[in-house]
Amino acid sequence: MRAVDVIRAKRDGGELSPVQIDAFVEGATHGTWEPYQLSALLMAITIRGMTDAETAHLTRAMTDSGVRVDLSDIPGVKVDKHSTGGVGDKTSLILAPLAAACGVVVPMMSGRGLGHTGGTLDKLEAIPGFRVNLSIDEFRATLRKVGVAMISQTKDVAPADRVLYALRDVTGTVESIPLITASILSKKLAEGISALVMDVKCGRGAFMKTLPDARKLAQSLVRVGTANGLRIEAVITAMDAPLGHCVGNANEVQECLSVLEGSSAGPLADLSILLAAKMIKLAGLAVDDADGERQVRAALTSGAGLRKFHELVEAQGGDFHAMAQRTPGKLTLVKPHRGGYVASIDAESVGRAAMMLGAGRERVADKNDPVVGLEVSTPVGSPAELHRPVFILQSTRPDRLAEAVALLESAVTYSDTPPEPTPLILETITS
Amino acid sequence: MRAVDVIRAKRDGGELSPVQIDAFVEGATHGTWEPYQLSALLMAITIRGMTDAETAHLTRAMTDSGVRVDLSDIPGVKVDKHSTGGVGDKTSLILAPLAAACGVVVPMMSGRGLGHTGGTLDKLEAIPGFRVNLSIDEFRATLRKVGVAMISQTKDVAPADRVLYALRDVTGTVESIPLITASILSKKLAEGISALVMDVKCGRGAFMKTLPDARKLAQSLVRVGTANGLRIEAVITAMDAPLGHCVGNANEVQECLSVLEGSSAGPLADLSILLAAKMIKLAGLAVDDADGERQVRAALTSGAGLRKFHELVEAQGGDFHAMAQRTPGKLTLVKPHRGGYVASIDAESVGRAAMMLGAGRERVADKNDPVVGLEVSTPVGSPAELHRPVFILQSTRPDRLAEAVALLESAVTYSDTPPEPTPLILETITS
Repeated sequence: MRAVDVIRAKRDGGELSPVQIDAFVEGATHGTWEPYQLSALLMAITIRGMTDAETAHLTRAMTDSGVRVDLSDIPGVKVDKHSTGGVGDKTSLILAPLAAACGVVVPMMSGRGLGHTGGTLDKLEAIPGFRVNLSIDEFRATLRKVGVAMISQTKDVAPADRVLYALRDVTGTVESIPLITASILSKKLAEGISALVMDVKCGRGAFMKTLPDARKLAQSLVRVGTANGLRIEAVITAMDAPLGHCVGNANEVQECLSVLEGSSAGPLADLSILLAAKMIKLAGLAVDDADGERQVRAALTSGAGLRKFHELVEAQGGDFHAMAQRTPGKLTLVKPHRGGYVASIDAESVGRAAMMLGAGRERVADKNDPVVGLEVSTPVGSPAELHRPVFILQSTRPDRLAEAVALLESAVTYSDTPPEPTPLILETITS
Repeated sequence: MRAVDVIRAKRDGGELSPVQIDAFVEGATHGTWEPYQLSALLMAITIRGMTDAETAHLTRAMTDSGVRVDLSDIPGVKVDKHSTGGVGDKTSLILAPLAAACGVVVPMMSGRGLGHTGGTLDKLEAIPGFRVNLSIDEFRATLRKVGVAMISQTKDVAPADRVLYALRDVTGTVESIPLITASILSKKLAEGISALVMDVKCGRGAFMKTLPDARKLAQSLVRVGTANGLRIEAVITAMDAPLGHCVGNANEVQECLSVLEGSSAGPLADLSILLAAKMIKLAGLAVDDADGERQVRAALTSGAGLRKFHELVEAQGGDFHAMAQRTPGKLTLVKPHRGGYVASIDAESVGRAAMMLGAGRERVADKNDPVVGLEVSTPVGSPAELHRPVFILQSTRPDRLAEAVALLESAVTYSDTPPEPTPLILETITS
């Protein structure tokens, strides 16, 4: 099968056959298609779209371009949660131990953060000693012992996705619902899970800026996941302002600990509990969301979730004590220039400011600094007082500080009256 | 300007600015855009299209990616003719000497044939000694002395087109009216001409299979050519059956000589005269097509056109005598399997059969053999008689002969009554 014939078929709006899709994925995996042929088809897919049947087959083929972890000999139902990426989004570190404490097996493989959104691996690595690069055998052993393990995707997970993702980033083909769907689900299917809860972020700080776009992606994920044998549910959640108080790495881990300790309520805790409840439900351990939530709240109150987090960190070599001992960065306060109320905080600007401080990376090869970050000390809806900071920054890079502060100042709007509260959960999409 | 931003603008159906188009063309010319970025934009252009303003600027930028020959010091109006490619299409070798004999300066730069369509350069090189690779100084000297010169496009003519054309061929982005328009006109503008007659082929043996498609291309060429300062007219001509009797190289040159000698009338002579007449009109040397045709027919009858062809061949080092001395290939006859009339001859199959025999090339690097080829001895509309061949083949490759004969047999349809005559000139598009 010639690449050019597959490309032409999609260019003209046709539906690709499984054999044509296989040719494309094999071409990407083994380099038998030239990159300029891959990108031409990626663009044709981006403009022409794909049917669910095409996307489902593409997902399967991308999963099968690498290894699928077989966890069938480990007792329990394997369930994961995946987020499309937000600022301050640290729910994984809270919900994974909580779900595991409730009997779910959580085999979580993650990527690193890029651009203004953070990544789970970077947060975990802020814990000194924490190893995210477990071998598959160590991964299995940790899952069997602790019920949860959090590692980086290995090179042999969906290699076709790695090739295609790198191309999409530089060819204007990122914004394609079928391609995003296949990219996310191919890597999740490789984990050997039975069920998946998707957190589709929506808003100014998210990849999907509008509810209709987020809904399209959520529906595609649910339909294509179902077609690939997953029990799957998607929650569309607001990502206009950062989630929780902390944006960074070590400080986000601290915030997760405080939620698991029961000392921090609010949107972050609420969302983590909701997502964990759905994981328990999809695992068949709860009859509905409310039953799941009851179990999660019990695990929170009893400290079982916190203990599970400590078990996980210990099993993967991390040392909370060493994290607390680290020299903190230089503190800088960003105060409001007027009174009234904080009406909005632009999550994307906050994410970019954190990246400037060194908490994230602009390019894949960049290094990040675990101790830097920022805290939203006056969240949206709170009264603004001239002497009380909106942001508290911890930085080690004086050269970028002024730029980050300016960006943060421009990220906030104020109002004379309290802003309308906006919901965190916008929609739930079930199969 | 980032490549990805230009790509995204066209992906979303926007109109590219001159600056964005310049970035693309410079990226192609200097390799600052990766091939996979070029192909992604080519695909977006193929699906989304371009406005005339965009196509005109793209054409200009592609021309300016290389040298423009300056012929302003050579007296006379410079006019060329270009065809979109057909089977047996050898009008250039007839009309260029005729137009030159009538006072037009014809600076013709051509490419080589590829696939089932032949190229002017290959036909000229069937004349032993004929040099198509004149330097620009030799080209100018020949034009000044003879009034016509026919050479290959040099490396410095529209280098952006060379890069893009090679990519289009393998990425399913050949069939784009704006890209075809810019590719053709950028190279013609580099010749330093003031006027251009376009022969847009239409039919089963042509790139444009239907009249609406051919009309779109012809209109685009006329509008974009006009926007670039060319006087331009396009003729849409039928390319269902081969044009004239001969398909090959040396035999096509012989057929041109017989037309110029006045001993061969028919569609080939008619079309060549019409196109030459339009060249004379666009040069301002005739008041209308009829006046132009009168002048061309006079140059034909007087032998001035034939003498001009001999002058041209001599000036570029060719030797007609040596061509006639060459050992011919082995003759094979393809006879009709029934009586009646030849109802149709599929030009594409005939072109492919000639290519198999060695007259054309499948790949740019292939060599062709000047003496092989075939003759349509019973053209469409003529009575089919069992003992009179439809095709006469001259071949030197016994290994491909049976395959070529089978293809030719399948290329012909027969009927009991004479087929309806079909017009050669389908439409004329003026600015």
